[in-house]
Amino acid sequence: MTDNAMIVQLSDEECWRLLASERIGRVAISSGRGPQIFPVNHVVQDRLIIFRSGPGEKVAESWSHPRVAFEVDGRDGNEFWSVVVDGPTEIRAEDDPVVRDALQSLVSFHPSEKHMAITIAADQISGRRFQPKTPAGLWGS
Amino acid sequence: MTDNAMIVQLSDEECWRLLASERIGRVAISSGRGPQIFPVNHVVQDRLIIFRSGPGEKVAESWSHPRVAFEVDGRDGNEFWSVVVDGPTEIRAEDDPVVRDALQSLVSFHPSEKHMAITIAADQISGRRFQPKTPAGLWGS
Repeated sequence: MTDNAMIVQLSDEECWRLLASERIGRVAISSGRGPQIFPVNHVVQDRLIIFRSGPGEKVAESWSHPRVAFEVDGRDGNEFWSVVVDGPTEIRAEDDPVVRDALQSLVSFHPSEKHMAITIAADQISGRRFQPKTPAGLWGS
Repeated sequence: MTDNAMIVQLSDEECWRLLASERIGRVAISSGRGPQIFPVNHVVQDRLIIFRSGPGEKVAESWSHPRVAFEVDGRDGNEFWSVVVDGPTEIRAEDDPVVRDALQSLVSFHPSEKHMAITIAADQISGRRFQPKTPAGLWGS
């Protein structure tokens, strides 16, 4: 038995449950100046990840880089878990029927105005859970 | 006054302090199949971000994509903050003098063996802090 046996791969169902349980995720895009990453406030509906953005924000770059990765992570008692998705994006108007209802439950953490919604469809989803070697007191703030 | 006035841009000093205060960050790379993102356990030394990885792990892809983005975020009372770095990586042996001391303080969250260290030099660093519109109870787990 190797150390790797301590890592539990999560089912797709569990990954989606965890994605929906978190309010903040991080989006990665490939831009002309290399990969970029930024936190967003998201919701999940019908296996789409949905977040808002406004023109002039960094995320607007995803228009010309329509494939993104998305990550959430957290702790559950002594365990650390993370879920990673990657897939294509679509830009949608805030009144688009696909996102309209979901956006009503989406309280943006960012106080500036948001003018569009971006959806991520998950081509791939994976997650894992494991107990760190470190004592709980080392988790950081 | 617009809503944007509520966002505070952080100084470089504050960004580095926050980077060093967190145990988990997220690395984004550009890979052949699009951007990828994964959480890592990191330390900061002399304005280098340092984390471990083993061959066969996703991060090994950064060898052929030597530029990455790195993000940490957190809460501070009612405020949310995030810091984003981007810059070039270098792969180093664990006994490389540049990383050897820092690695001794790096307790990996991931239980598998790690065989190399990767450093990120920050070409760009930026951070911001703001009070979400949402009540604290909506922060999620």
